[in-house]
Amino acid sequence: MKKQHISDAVVRRLPRYYRYLDELHSRGVVRISSSVLGKRMGVTASQIRQDLSCFGEFGQQGYGYNIMELRAEIGHILGVDEPRRLIIIGAGHLGHALLQNFDFAQGGFRLDTAFDVSEALIGTEINGVEIHSMDELEDYCARNHPAVAVLTVPKAAAQDTAARLVALGVRGLWNFTNVELAVDESVFVENVHFADSLLTLSYRISKNANPEKRWP
Amino acid sequence: MKKQHISDAVVRRLPRYYRYLDELHSRGVVRISSSVLGKRMGVTASQIRQDLSCFGEFGQQGYGYNIMELRAEIGHILGVDEPRRLIIIGAGHLGHALLQNFDFAQGGFRLDTAFDVSEALIGTEINGVEIHSMDELEDYCARNHPAVAVLTVPKAAAQDTAARLVALGVRGLWNFTNVELAVDESVFVENVHFADSLLTLSYRISKNANPEKRWP
Repeated sequence: MKKQHISDAVVRRLPRYYRYLDELHSRGVVRISSSVLGKRMGVTASQIRQDLSCFGEFGQQGYGYNIMELRAEIGHILGVDEPRRLIIIGAGHLGHALLQNFDFAQGGFRLDTAFDVSEALIGTEINGVEIHSMDELEDYCARNHPAVAVLTVPKAAAQDTAARLVALGVRGLWNFTNVELAVDESVFVENVHFADSLLTLSYRISKNANPEKRWP
Repeated sequence: MKKQHISDAVVRRLPRYYRYLDELHSRGVVRISSSVLGKRMGVTASQIRQDLSCFGEFGQQGYGYNIMELRAEIGHILGVDEPRRLIIIGAGHLGHALLQNFDFAQGGFRLDTAFDVSEALIGTEINGVEIHSMDELEDYCARNHPAVAVLTVPKAAAQDTAARLVALGVRGLWNFTNVELAVDESVFVENVHFADSLLTLSYRISKNANPEKRWP
């Protein structure tokens, strides 16, 4: 595997490739050319070839990609074959929705447990996961070293909770709080901005442009 | 305003520009150069100038952008100054979280009402919004013509509910169901894929690459 700087744009396309390949695979498709894959995803064939070339050699000139192989390779690049421990901080409605419906394993993680401050929630189970008291967070992290914490706490608690998790050795934060977290540069913060997505929809509707044919 | 095809990549950067300008504005910053703005956002100054040139002339050579003006212009381009009616279909945990915490006005929409099939929810209020029965959907849409519906229903109900909304004249769907909806091309579907975001985090952690300095 080549060692080179991979741009943020390439990194953000990888999960989409993975998702499309997954869907094609589950439909029983075996091979696909970069031009057909590109058409479905709204990117050019050369873009796909260029993106993948950052990671090695894939596909065969004139034969396209073997979907199962490419999917496994991209999954490997994304780290899904070495799932890491993940905890959820905040089991309110959003945390609850993630606990109930989100497939963390597919995202490369093993959901271990969840924490909340609410007495009404502590000790209950959501989808087989027990909700623990935030008072147990230090002990838990010392024993289990979770790699990532999902932040689904109220805005007012976001920065303090993030700092506490970072001090406990968490290396990544999946941040749903809409707060720009100030944490050490060595910690990876992935922000989920619902508003960016809705604004895109607002733009398209107000411009009444034709929706681009894409497999989004 | 120029009439030209605006690429999906440009459209998706607009909400981010809007968000950063909003934050700078709320901090009292008055002007910013494209190079400083670009640095914070992890894009080049020429990218910003090129993106904005799709929509008209902004900023002054050597003086940068007036933040309040540029923010208002981008808001206008995104359609936030003509908020459209939006309804939420499904007031389960995710729907509830959006009702409770999400600022739809900032996303260019006016949250009108929400619908659910659960007898326990119908007639209750979440954050001042009454939950109506799905049986009332036809009547409501005939009277109020909502532009967008948020789909926070279970997977199994996603496609049927989408088809029903489209038949009722809804022009956009904000889709949280993780189902690829088959709807008429004239309808705008904006999919929220949590997994893409988490996979990005998985990649960064498994590669242990330095997080890119960016204002995400």
